[in-house]
Amino acid sequence: MQLTPFKSIIDNYQTIFFDAFGVLKNHHGLLPGIHKTFEYLHERGIDYYVLTNDASRSPQLLAEYYQERGLSNIEEHRVISSGMLAREYLKLKVDTGTIAYIGTEQSAHYLEALGLHAVCIADVDLNNSHDINALVFLDDEGFNWNNDLNKCVNLLRQQNIPAIVCNTDRSYPESYSEVSIAIGALANMVEQVVGKKFIKFGKPDAQMFIFAYEHAVERGSTDDKKKILMVGDTLIMDILGGNKFGLDTALVLTGNTLAKNAEMRISTLGILPTFICESAVIEG
Amino acid sequence: MQLTPFKSIIDNYQTIFFDAFGVLKNHHGLLPGIHKTFEYLHERGIDYYVLTNDASRSPQLLAEYYQERGLSNIEEHRVISSGMLAREYLKLKVDTGTIAYIGTEQSAHYLEALGLHAVCIADVDLNNSHDINALVFLDDEGFNWNNDLNKCVNLLRQQNIPAIVCNTDRSYPESYSEVSIAIGALANMVEQVVGKKFIKFGKPDAQMFIFAYEHAVERGSTDDKKKILMVGDTLIMDILGGNKFGLDTALVLTGNTLAKNAEMRISTLGILPTFICESAVIEG
Amino acid sequence: MQLTPFKSIIDNYQTIFFDAFGVLKNHHGLLPGIHKTFEYLHERGIDYYVLTNDASRSPQLLAEYYQERGLSNIEEHRVISSGMLAREYLKLKVDTGTIAYIGTEQSAHYLEALGLHAVCIADVDLNNSHDINALVFLDDEGFNWNNDLNKCVNLLRQQNIPAIVCNTDRSYPESYSEVSIAIGALANMVEQVVGKKFIKFGKPDAQMFIFAYEHAVERGSTDDKKKILMVGDTLIMDILGGNKFGLDTALVLTGNTLAKNAEMRISTLGILPTFICESAVIEG
Amino acid sequence: MQLTPFKSIIDNYQTIFFDAFGVLKNHHGLLPGIHKTFEYLHERGIDYYVLTNDASRSPQLLAEYYQERGLSNIEEHRVISSGMLAREYLKLKVDTGTIAYIGTEQSAHYLEALGLHAVCIADVDLNNSHDINALVFLDDEGFNWNNDLNKCVNLLRQQNIPAIVCNTDRSYPESYSEVSIAIGALANMVEQVVGKKFIKFGKPDAQMFIFAYEHAVERGSTDDKKKILMVGDTLIMDILGGNKFGLDTALVLTGNTLAKNAEMRISTLGILPTFICESAVIEG
Repeated sequence: MQLTPFKSIIDNYQTIFFDAFGVLKNHHGLLPGIHKTFEYLHERGIDYYVLTNDASRSPQLLAEYYQERGLSNIEEHRVISSGMLAREYLKLKVDTGTIAYIGTEQSAHYLEALGLHAVCIADVDLNNSHDINALVFLDDEGFNWNNDLNKCVNLLRQQNIPAIVCNTDRSYPESYSEVSIAIGALANMVEQVVGKKFIKFGKPDAQMFIFAYEHAVERGSTDDKKKILMVGDTLIMDILGGNKFGLDTALVLTGNTLAKNAEMRISTLGILPTFICESAVIEG
Repeated sequence: MQLTPFKSIIDNYQTIFFDAFGVLKNHHGLLPGIHKTFEYLHERGIDYYVLTNDASRSPQLLAEYYQERGLSNIEEHRVISSGMLAREYLKLKVDTGTIAYIGTEQSAHYLEALGLHAVCIADVDLNNSHDINALVFLDDEGFNWNNDLNKCVNLLRQQNIPAIVCNTDRSYPESYSEVSIAIGALANMVEQVVGKKFIKFGKPDAQMFIFAYEHAVERGSTDDKKKILMVGDTLIMDILGGNKFGLDTALVLTGNTLAKNAEMRISTLGILPTFICESAVIEG
Repeated sequence: MQLTPFKSIIDNYQTIFFDAFGVLKNHHGLLPGIHKTFEYLHERGIDYYVLTNDASRSPQLLAEYYQERGLSNIEEHRVISSGMLAREYLKLKVDTGTIAYIGTEQSAHYLEALGLHAVCIADVDLNNSHDINALVFLDDEGFNWNNDLNKCVNLLRQQNIPAIVCNTDRSYPESYSEVSIAIGALANMVEQVVGKKFIKFGKPDAQMFIFAYEHAVERGSTDDKKKILMVGDTLIMDILGGNKFGLDTALVLTGNTLAKNAEMRISTLGILPTFICESAVIEG
Repeated sequence: MQLTPFKSIIDNYQTIFFDAFGVLKNHHGLLPGIHKTFEYLHERGIDYYVLTNDASRSPQLLAEYYQERGLSNIEEHRVISSGMLAREYLKLKVDTGTIAYIGTEQSAHYLEALGLHAVCIADVDLNNSHDINALVFLDDEGFNWNNDLNKCVNLLRQQNIPAIVCNTDRSYPESYSEVSIAIGALANMVEQVVGKKFIKFGKPDAQMFIFAYEHAVERGSTDDKKKILMVGDTLIMDILGGNKFGLDTALVLTGNTLAKNAEMRISTLGILPTFICESAVIEG
């Protein structure tokens, strides 16, 4: 397995798409030294965006996380979350009425920003649910799984409404040794129980990359896919998705894919990153 | 779709296997008139067993349900539950140490009957889990889904132990209009999140039918599969499983499969019952 | 089920996306009367594109089919095929070397248009395959399934190269009563045997809709998704895909979805078209 | 990973179940030295059976393979093939009429032994198929995949008949470096295209193990599952199946599971053999 220094490749691109978890941060916080990477990008005039399967909070709050830790240039407009795709869908397709949601109040931002009336699944009255126009899965926190997942099942049996999943991840790291079940896995379970087709947003789906790409074009970052590099730690989400969209891809070994089995996973899955780098942190 | 009166077919069999829910009982209790069916079976000397995907309580408690409602002949030995298969597995394969379980205390009967030390997942200490030899999914009740399903995921990431699912059903009826997510669906979700292969017991798997068949042979009911009729309301569980095991099968329309779409479902799924009967209740 | 006359809705849109098979044509040829629809669209200045999961021939040949049958305005630039997405991917990601393909010589157009050296799987030498940079599934015809699907499996076991599927359909109508297995199903089988992740193009994937949308924007048809109507006969391909991309959708009953079970399928799958129309043919 | 010498464990068992390919033989023929294992078993009075997912030829022909290579004691009655389960099913469930089959004439043995009229799929007339009572997938050879898999699809669309798959394997080794697509993979593809549920026989399904177990009990080999050892090279077929049936299991490293990644695969899949042995060949 040939490792390429991250610094040696980025000069060839006009825009970098970064995955967040496992690339820029982990359960301890920001990766030590990641500031240098962003300094270097600024110096060289290379633009960048963070593409994250996350609908647990608004792009503004997601951006503040970085700013509070010294990455002041990661502004709100540089964060592309899967929640934004769901918001776009709802804006186009469900413009009136009440939307039931699963998640924290913070995650409901994506609904309220549209002027939609959002009601937490816990507050849905199954005897009076005819005004509900969609069910949106936002976050794994903020509700009682025993009661409220059963309510989701029965709401979807009663009403023929679209079910929207704003994050396709199945789990996320909770600490060094523990993971948590993510909303993507909970939504998959409900989908199988009710037997309907849900509408899902997030990497590796092309829509996430297009959203980021169009945003980058609009802002003048680039208009050439060949000049964009997708950097991620997960073969099946970041690298597969980036490849399919036609981007060059760099796998970093600071998250889900460990150095000791990267080669075997690449060969087993047949998902081929353009580059493999130890880390997105630039040395020296 | 040709309907056959249930009474007209049962005389051809020595033993009847009944599914429980949707065939003998529903959310209101026993099906009105089902007593006559059992009187008739006794009169004719036809033996019978109840085969149920249920590990929420012991065969004794499952039998008592019928006895308390006037079906005094449905004794404990006539109830074959998927929990019994899991018990058999554990007896053969995990004979020492501690077993972690998901479900009510009542469901833990299947473990305690073996003399195994059973500990509820809520009481498992993830910092000290090396003495746990298996994880058993018994029932959807009796635990906090938010906390305890995440504990299951992390226990299985820490310890390479078998995970046993004692009921493969995805949902069960809670009332006329509502269903609940069953332990089979919760276990499937955990399986997908950890990426391991679980060991699953319950219809339509052949093991359930063999267990019942061997039991019937031992008790002298029959020793000829051609003389056994499987009666069920669910094509994918009861009819597919019975067919594959080589039994004649009767689909009844008092449960999951409704009269209005039985024909379409049979043709779409390609699962062919030997007979279709309105009900297992004998008229007249 | 409320049926809406197709004519009554199209005035509200600037651009119509049509699926081909089951909407504009069937195994007999063009739908009788479909010419009127296109006359009306021209009269009203409504633009239109044909979106088809097809890589069996070039957009030019696909367009000629309509032109030869009197729809002279369906020019090449109005046809968006899933093969074009694969071509775009290859252009960005596999710009040198030899590409092995499965399909007819006609389907190889998509590779040759790029200046790539395309070699039919039948002509691949497994003892000398190191110069092959990708395997592309184009069409179910033009090769020997017994020999050549096994060759695909072994090529992918030998070389860690991307496998690209240019049409995700599983079957297509061959005549009134018969269907044929499509390349999407053959590719899925190979994918399962080798255990790798293939890169797949075609509806309902968003990439197909984006490609068409960007094309429509470039040509000045529209720049507002709310002004585009997707018309299709297949819930899971056309309607789900159109909905997810944020378009209004019209289900027509001249193809895969029959009038007698449309309502049941919509409710079972939970895929909700904006409109249901008997046909895309305009009466009167 | 702790390796246990095969010889040191077999004395604890009354009966050994062997998988065939990867355990007793490979593409070169019998494993060198495997004769000693069978001499030792005879010496010690330990009984044995070969359990194989194979319906390409009769148990007699399967046994002759071993006999011709010096293992004269592997008589017909010691071979349990997945084809025998299908034969049992057909005997119980499809006792009249014509059966269409996919495979070689040799594989049709399983049908003809029942006195059923077997017709090769190539000879089925789709305009006159109403007398066909089942479709049986036996072998990947002996027919034209292009024509005949399409005929399978259309036969199953015309007639609501059971489809039986006599071998669930997806591939098999053809030579040192090549594999072939097996009938299990072809049947899965047809199943997905027609959307019906097929009836499938073979490891890891419990029915295979029960069939062998009952046979062993009848012949007086054993009547205690604790005294049976299942020996196999494939975690997902042999070890998972043996474990679930309650048997002790030994993984050997002479076939599908390589020494270099056995530990990782065991831990990733969570399928735990009782023992890991280099080989079923006894040294010394």
